Amino acid sequence: MLKTSGIREKVDVCVVGAGHAGCEAALACARLGLETVIFTVSVDSIALMPCNPNIGGSSKGHLVRELDALGGEMGKNIDKTFIQSKMLNVSKGPAVHSLRAQADKAEYSRAMRKVLENQDHLTIKQAEICELLWEENTNSDDNATKKIVGVKTFTGAIYECRAVVLCTGTYLNARCLCGEAITHTGPNGLMAATHLSASLEEMGIEMRRFKTGTPARMDRRSIDFSKMEEQFGDERVVPFSFSTNPEDVQIDQVSCYLTYTNERTHEIIRANLDRSPIYAGIIEGTGPRYCPSIEDKVVKFAEKERHQVFMEPEGLHTNEMYVGGMSSSLPEDVQLAMYRTVPGLEHCKIVRNAYAIEYDCINSKQLYPTLRFKDVEGLYSGGQLNGSSGYEEAAVQGFMAGVNAAMFLLSREQIILDRSEAYIGVLIDDLVTKENNEPYRMMTSRAEYRLLLRQDNADLRLREKGYQIGLISKEQYQSLLKKKQMIKEEICRMKEHTVGASKENQDFLIRHNSSTLKTGSNLAELVCRPELSYEILSEIDPDRPSLPADVIEQVEIEIKYEGYIERQLRQVEQFKKMERKKIPADIDYDSVPSLRIEARQKLKSFHPMSIGQASRISGVSPADVSVLLVYLEQYNRKDKVE
Amino acid sequence: MLKTSGIREKVDVCVVGAGHAGCEAALACARLGLETVIFTVSVDSIALMPCNPNIGGSSKGHLVRELDALGGEMGKNIDKTFIQSKMLNVSKGPAVHSLRAQADKAEYSRAMRKVLENQDHLTIKQAEICELLWEENTNSDDNATKKIVGVKTFTGAIYECRAVVLCTGTYLNARCLCGEAITHTGPNGLMAATHLSASLEEMGIEMRRFKTGTPARMDRRSIDFSKMEEQFGDERVVPFSFSTNPEDVQIDQVSCYLTYTNERTHEIIRANLDRSPIYAGIIEGTGPRYCPSIEDKVVKFAEKERHQVFMEPEGLHTNEMYVGGMSSSLPEDVQLAMYRTVPGLEHCKIVRNAYAIEYDCINSKQLYPTLRFKDVEGLYSGGQLNGSSGYEEAAVQGFMAGVNAAMFLLSREQIILDRSEAYIGVLIDDLVTKENNEPYRMMTSRAEYRLLLRQDNADLRLREKGYQIGLISKEQYQSLLKKKQMIKEEICRMKEHTVGASKENQDFLIRHNSSTLKTGSNLAELVCRPELSYEILSEIDPDRPSLPADVIEQVEIEIKYEGYIERQLRQVEQFKKMERKKIPADIDYDSVPSLRIEARQKLKSFHPMSIGQASRISGVSPADVSVLLVYLEQYNRKDKVE
Ligand SMILES: Cc1cc2nc3c(=O)[nH]c(=O)nc-3n(C[C@H](O)[C@H](O)[C@H](O)COP(=O)(O)OP(=O)(O)OC[C@H]3O[C@@H](n4cnc5c(N)ncnc54)[C@H](O)[C@@H]3O)c2cc1C
Ligand SMILES: Cc1cc2nc3c(=O)[nH]c(=O)nc-3n(C[C@H](O)[C@H](O)[C@H](O)COP(=O)(O)OP(=O)(O)OC[C@H]3O[C@@H](n4cnc5c(N)ncnc54)[C@H](O)[C@@H]3O)c2cc1C
Repeated sequence: MLKTSGIREKVDVCVVGAGHAGCEAALACARLGLETVIFTVSVDSIALMPCNPNIGGSSKGHLVRELDALGGEMGKNIDKTFIQSKMLNVSKGPAVHSLRAQADKAEYSRAMRKVLENQDHLTIKQAEICELLWEENTNSDDNATKKIVGVKTFTGAIYECRAVVLCTGTYLNARCLCGEAITHTGPNGLMAATHLSASLEEMGIEMRRFKTGTPARMDRRSIDFSKMEEQFGDERVVPFSFSTNPEDVQIDQVSCYLTYTNERTHEIIRANLDRSPIYAGIIEGTGPRYCPSIEDKVVKFAEKERHQVFMEPEGLHTNEMYVGGMSSSLPEDVQLAMYRTVPGLEHCKIVRNAYAIEYDCINSKQLYPTLRFKDVEGLYSGGQLNGSSGYEEAAVQGFMAGVNAAMFLLSREQIILDRSEAYIGVLIDDLVTKENNEPYRMMTSRAEYRLLLRQDNADLRLREKGYQIGLISKEQYQSLLKKKQMIKEEICRMKEHTVGASKENQDFLIRHNSSTLKTGSNLAELVCRPELSYEILSEIDPDRPSLPADVIEQVEIEIKYEGYIERQLRQVEQFKKMERKKIPADIDYDSVPSLRIEARQKLKSFHPMSIGQASRISGVSPADVSVLLVYLEQYNRKDKVE
Repeated sequence: MLKTSGIREKVDVCVVGAGHAGCEAALACARLGLETVIFTVSVDSIALMPCNPNIGGSSKGHLVRELDALGGEMGKNIDKTFIQSKMLNVSKGPAVHSLRAQADKAEYSRAMRKVLENQDHLTIKQAEICELLWEENTNSDDNATKKIVGVKTFTGAIYECRAVVLCTGTYLNARCLCGEAITHTGPNGLMAATHLSASLEEMGIEMRRFKTGTPARMDRRSIDFSKMEEQFGDERVVPFSFSTNPEDVQIDQVSCYLTYTNERTHEIIRANLDRSPIYAGIIEGTGPRYCPSIEDKVVKFAEKERHQVFMEPEGLHTNEMYVGGMSSSLPEDVQLAMYRTVPGLEHCKIVRNAYAIEYDCINSKQLYPTLRFKDVEGLYSGGQLNGSSGYEEAAVQGFMAGVNAAMFLLSREQIILDRSEAYIGVLIDDLVTKENNEPYRMMTSRAEYRLLLRQDNADLRLREKGYQIGLISKEQYQSLLKKKQMIKEEICRMKEHTVGASKENQDFLIRHNSSTLKTGSNLAELVCRPELSYEILSEIDPDRPSLPADVIEQVEIEIKYEGYIERQLRQVEQFKKMERKKIPADIDYDSVPSLRIEARQKLKSFHPMSIGQASRISGVSPADVSVLLVYLEQYNRKDKVE
């Protein structure tokens, strides 16, 4: 009786991995009331940033704000732990404004761990998951042949559950390369996870091998900053989270520094390319095109005379500096020589070498846009494991995967954001619909409707969804409604408030280099003039209501870009029509006549959920889509008759 | 020309390892002006506490204060980062008073890293050292056959140097055991160092395999503290460091909690012993007798009905709690079952399992008391690698090894503390003179002269030495001299200040239940009475000078224990006589007549530096010592004649 036998626990959800994806997944599930366990190879690596010390940036900043609007944690966490913040691209249109903050890495990780540790219904467990437990799926509502029943740890403990979210990042069979030196570890010398890939493959899941890289970390005392351009944070910091009080983020900020590579740097790299693991053919994985190593840049953009190098502090309490823009897997001696050609780095000392990491990930076409494996009920997947790259990309996927795992367990409808609703939607649709043969990175250019999907209106777009999911509180939702109301009323007032050609008004316009009025106008029309703004107009609009800054921002953008916005909204209507045309899960493509062979194969392999999704699969032509539409109409009619 | 080739740098000292030993070694060398590189498998593990979250404790507190007196960093660092502090054994004599502080582990590590990062002449390098580089030693002044010329990293970088300090702790060929589950990693899932052992063995260094263990970490929210005894810190905290302002350590403290195992706990352990890696014969290493696992305690002290269990917070910013007293390598399910029998832990959740770790270390008899390898010029060794266990034991050895590496490079005399000067001396002498077949732990009972080697007088004993070494500043040394002077003058005054049998004085004595005076007495005599104290006497000693608390403490102890102290001082004189009788390094024991065979063998293997050390080698009898003394006298006479 006293003889114990293997641990067997019953929970609702198991989240495998506590990186940026896993943290969001686990918090979402636990906050929705589900008993959740989050597994990590090392508790000390929770929300670890193994590469760049910042959150956000072009299009990534959008992801963080969208995540925040939906009820995620990343935005709040960086607001607590940033050390510099900047709104990028402010000289360009609002669609490409993007927030980026430098993080104190150790603090970021610690703060997130604290949130996890204090979340009800959430248990942190340091253990390697080695095996997924599954059974044949007998639920006829679902096309999946398997269903999840639990996970097994390295020590043999079994956690029974009906949903698993995989967020294993760069740890599966990871190996790190620095020139000829190869170690079989995860990031930062942490233990890799060496068993799970085999279990996934046994389940019939197709794996891939991707790679990514990181630059050296240098001792700040060895750097001559006087040879670099100092980069300051914004004077007035905008928080990431819609729940953060803007006053709380007006802190003392630290600087970054900009310098450049030069011909000598490039020569050293070229002369030693044969010792690069990539060019020597040692690397098996595929690297990210849009986050290339410095050797890739030098080879692919041979005409460029220089590349930017950003020196970024890793935190307030360390002297380590990150060498942004110069990731590499060249041997240590080549690294040192090339870094030392860069102005300011002539005497640099490397604390940690640059290295590349290779890891197993999945082919994400095996996923529904809900981030569930098509063939396995209860199995969700998020983050780098899905073939993406980047903290923010990981976090939003982890969140969506977690939410959908929860929706499944709560017998509620799955949540899909489409390409017109969010960058998150674009990201996931790209992952599950397009063949990504390299780590996927978010970019503004990937979003067709980017004038609608701005970072400034993420709350207006998504907070309601977050509220419906149950991760946004009633108060938060009501404050959104109030904000919407204020925006609407103010736009209305601006359009109705006429401005006459009085002497005073004409003087005002002349003073601001704006053409005078022939007839009367309204405030909205004046706001549209590039040389004027909502703020400037206050002089001739003395009775305006006093409004919060974020409301004014929306009023101004919506008026200024009204024409463009309306055009995109019409495009979205077209798009939505196709998205609404659902393809039944049990469709038999072999019985669809006139489909080209390639299209038939692709459709069978991707199993798109809608005509819209089908049309975005490469190899499916507009003609194939028409064929499909006709077939579906007949199918649906038949369905109704039966 | 642009083709680079392996890194080759020249430095003064290479320290391998950045645990508690390595940090002290590196700081000592760098502060003495030597260009020092400290290597670590992971920068994130600098000054990591992989086991108990406290510094100090019985006899270990002495080590920390001695280290501080000499110019080490540990005491300062814990003063900055402690969260509870307690002077242990205050009800007993001053010899066994010992300071112990709970640390915020993450803060401790971060603070030490910051000190290292900002130390001049010190470079941190994340790299695994795989090989020591050496040559034949041609220096005839030294008996060593080899000398150090550098180290080589995993990436092939070579650092040339004349001195290396090895502080590899528990990482060499480490493997972690939790029941049947075995992983080949260092502590906390960090990468092990798998190459250096072979290089050491190739140099002829004898390696051993030791093991140690750690208990589980639990989620504080799952513990019912109402069933435990709360343990508070001291009301008035005494700092560890003689340089810390006592006012700075009067902080808000957190509590620990005491609970106990019971018969049910022990039954579960006994019933599952066959699944313990130790009892199943899977473990190769030898564990520490004085830090036994809970299964060892239950087996070895079968008659005990319960064992103490201390629940200690791992830091302010985490919910993890350390389960002091219950380290284990039993399988996870047995752990959980046994922990849950403990009052307050009925519903405990384990965040990290308990585990044992096995690692390679050296047989420390290969070292001189300077911590240099006898056979390798320039090669020093400190910490767990020398077969000890514990943070404090590691730190003091690292410090002494570092100091002696520096003394060697600076062509200054090596520093040895003997058994009468410091616990550090006892520790090192035990390590290099006695055959330790298990991890060595400091204990007060190991120190013969413990009434002299108190934690309260560590500065009086050792600060001067620290000043001579060059790690204590002139100001610090002068303030010590001032303190000594004050103590001396006050003791003198106390002895000279006579107290008459006046009515007032007799009343005073009666009030304090002390016998009245027959004739006159002096203040010193009165202080010796158990019912009186320096403080109480203030009433009849109105003209006393105003003195700092630490001076008063010394005055009181020195007067009260004068007799005992003097006796120990006489014993020390005897001891020193034997220590001063040096044995020449080139002695040929085969030509010493009448030595017993065992003694001859032991002497040849240990190569003691003095008759004193020789006499402590087990297998060397008093008769052998006499023989040796006679031989040496002849030898020395001959020497003089020649
Ligand atoms: C060397 C390097 C370079 C990078 N370079 C870039 C870059 O240039 N640009 C960029 O945007 N991003 C880069 N990244 C990627 C970025 O770090 C990741 O995208 C992001 O951290 C992924 O988050 P994640 O949550 O998916 O996974 P991770 O952050 O990798 O977290 C994975 C988690 O899973 C756990 N885990 C894994 N397997 C198991 C298991 N079997 N059982 C239990 N726990 C498990 C781990 O312990 C960890 O907690 C780089 C990462 C590395 C390591
Ligand atoms: C599981 C466990 C249980 C323990 N239990 C106890 C206990 O009950 N009681 C107790 O008093 N003490 C215990 N300890 C021991 C205590 O942790 C150690 O005594 C102390 O940390 C030793 O300090 P150190 O400096 O010698 O080595 P460590 O703290 O182990 O540090 C070693 C350093 O060396 C580096 N390193 C190693 N090899 C190389 C290499 N080849 N190249 C570069 N760097 C290298 C590592 O990165 C690390 O920085 C335990 C330790 C562990 C891991």
